[in-house]
Amino acid sequence: MKIILDGMGGDFAPQEPVKGAVAAAAELPNHEIVIVGPVEVIQEELDKCKFKGDNISIREANDVITMEDSPVRAIRRKTDSTLVVGLNMLKDGQGDMFVSAGNTGALVVGARLILGRIRGIDRPTLASIYPDMTGGDPCLLVDAGASSESKANNLLEYGLMGSIYVEKVWDRPNPKVGLVNLGVEEGKGTSVTKDAFQKLKASHLNFVGNVEAREVPKHVCDVIVCDGFVGNVILKLTEGVSLSIFKLIKGALMTNMKSKIGGALIKSQLTALKDEFDYEEYGGAPVLGVNKPVIKMHGSSSATAVKNAILRGLPYAEEDIVGVIRTEMLKIQEFIEEDED
Amino acid sequence: MKIILDGMGGDFAPQEPVKGAVAAAAELPNHEIVIVGPVEVIQEELDKCKFKGDNISIREANDVITMEDSPVRAIRRKTDSTLVVGLNMLKDGQGDMFVSAGNTGALVVGARLILGRIRGIDRPTLASIYPDMTGGDPCLLVDAGASSESKANNLLEYGLMGSIYVEKVWDRPNPKVGLVNLGVEEGKGTSVTKDAFQKLKASHLNFVGNVEAREVPKHVCDVIVCDGFVGNVILKLTEGVSLSIFKLIKGALMTNMKSKIGGALIKSQLTALKDEFDYEEYGGAPVLGVNKPVIKMHGSSSATAVKNAILRGLPYAEEDIVGVIRTEMLKIQEFIEEDED
Repeated sequence: MKIILDGMGGDFAPQEPVKGAVAAAAELPNHEIVIVGPVEVIQEELDKCKFKGDNISIREANDVITMEDSPVRAIRRKTDSTLVVGLNMLKDGQGDMFVSAGNTGALVVGARLILGRIRGIDRPTLASIYPDMTGGDPCLLVDAGASSESKANNLLEYGLMGSIYVEKVWDRPNPKVGLVNLGVEEGKGTSVTKDAFQKLKASHLNFVGNVEAREVPKHVCDVIVCDGFVGNVILKLTEGVSLSIFKLIKGALMTNMKSKIGGALIKSQLTALKDEFDYEEYGGAPVLGVNKPVIKMHGSSSATAVKNAILRGLPYAEEDIVGVIRTEMLKIQEFIEEDED
Repeated sequence: MKIILDGMGGDFAPQEPVKGAVAAAAELPNHEIVIVGPVEVIQEELDKCKFKGDNISIREANDVITMEDSPVRAIRRKTDSTLVVGLNMLKDGQGDMFVSAGNTGALVVGARLILGRIRGIDRPTLASIYPDMTGGDPCLLVDAGASSESKANNLLEYGLMGSIYVEKVWDRPNPKVGLVNLGVEEGKGTSVTKDAFQKLKASHLNFVGNVEAREVPKHVCDVIVCDGFVGNVILKLTEGVSLSIFKLIKGALMTNMKSKIGGALIKSQLTALKDEFDYEEYGGAPVLGVNKPVIKMHGSSSATAVKNAILRGLPYAEEDIVGVIRTEMLKIQEFIEEDED
């Protein structure tokens, strides 16, 4: 496989993407990595890493889409940006997967515009890794904010694509799919979630029903389905509440001498706990529903995160997830049409 | 003022409501409390409390709407339930405010059907108290789940009513109103939130703009405006994440002898922290937009929570919040009509 890596995407580019590529290349001697970016800049970073292998190459691209750029305009105008060049290489078969820590909106829009939607998929989506706060393996939340408004069919698509990804890429057979809703009962929710419930229930997916937001942190399902607005609220609120509580705890531990000693004694446990919410280990999150494999990394990705995004994302390309989605989508579409008779 | 209390609402009725009424009556010698319920049962509880005052009376009602009842059907059929009898008393002027820890859906539906909407209000709403996780006073979240789908005008109404309530009942002048959205920028969101942003911005409210879910726990505004689906997700997810983290911490403290000792030393700080999220002190949450004051208490309310709901909710009746909403609503309606020309 040939992995195309955005050498200038993310807060710590080009250093961390290049270091991550070098680490990944060492573990993947039979695969190639092409780093997209300004040749001299990338080469300088490679030299710093004392890279001696032959499975990393550089593809020139001299512009960068920044966090401030408007996605659609940037994709159309910044044709020499690492993101646009990388996606075009993927489209043209000059690589098998594109990995980037750059502007999320631009990556999603670019993937849709340049690679195109899988036939039958109405809305490509961005998934996100959601922590299991009971200490187990994380879940996949779909949609993480690619579309702010979704129809019932879109939610069904998210469930289907998320389920395939978790099963094939995370190697978790028959993953449980849950729908975020106002209550667990079948009749609950908006017209969209009620309709989505029926479609998910009638599908071949392992649908476990509605999931209340209270249960979301407890890994009650492997694939958390919701529209992008709710997905955005879930991801950001989880972060906001977690950070606020850890800050309050830190403050509480400074109350008096006794609590300070107690705090010192439990410091390593608290640090370990914070690390549990850090999914660098788990790699990036997939853009799903486009015609080629695209992986989004967090903007603040370290070299380890980049390495893991490449290593753990590889099955997205190797297992031909796009092909599987294409086939399964046809199944579901037939079913939806039958259902509407 | 005469407060009507649902004697059979909540998980710990009739004991806790009656004990709470007795505690409130002692602090409100110039006000009356009418407890609605089966006379013998309520009297027995009053006797247990050794209540000697003359400002508590009982109004007979022999049926109860349970948590399992379907709201609309229960309001229509259970005409002798404490909830329906209490709301009818309020409607007929046999009291100034109704307070209940019963079935939330039934209370909201009953308030709307029996008391009617304030003229100009399209959607009455249920507010909820939201903790300030930086340690300050809580915020008011509107809508907490009364309507799962809201139009832009509804969000404007929620902002207006929440703002009046926080200013007059919580005595917090010129409260900040924020709109939960995908990003802080003006153009972000769904068609509904974009439209609501413009309406809130053009209104006389102290609108501070969009608020990302990440910031919600940090008290960036006094009134958090969102539709009921998102409100439900915010409230339940905050609870779910908080409880999960406290559970993880408890587990982490049991790792080894050192952490156990540390845990023992910080126990009182952690307990204090948990209590900060417990808003018993702050009283109940208002149903807003109906023609009389109605206060909803948490289903698991203790006597203290009941007492505080009565004491702290009193300005809802005393300050004629319903009248203020009626007047301010006319202002906003004129403005909306002008705006549409």
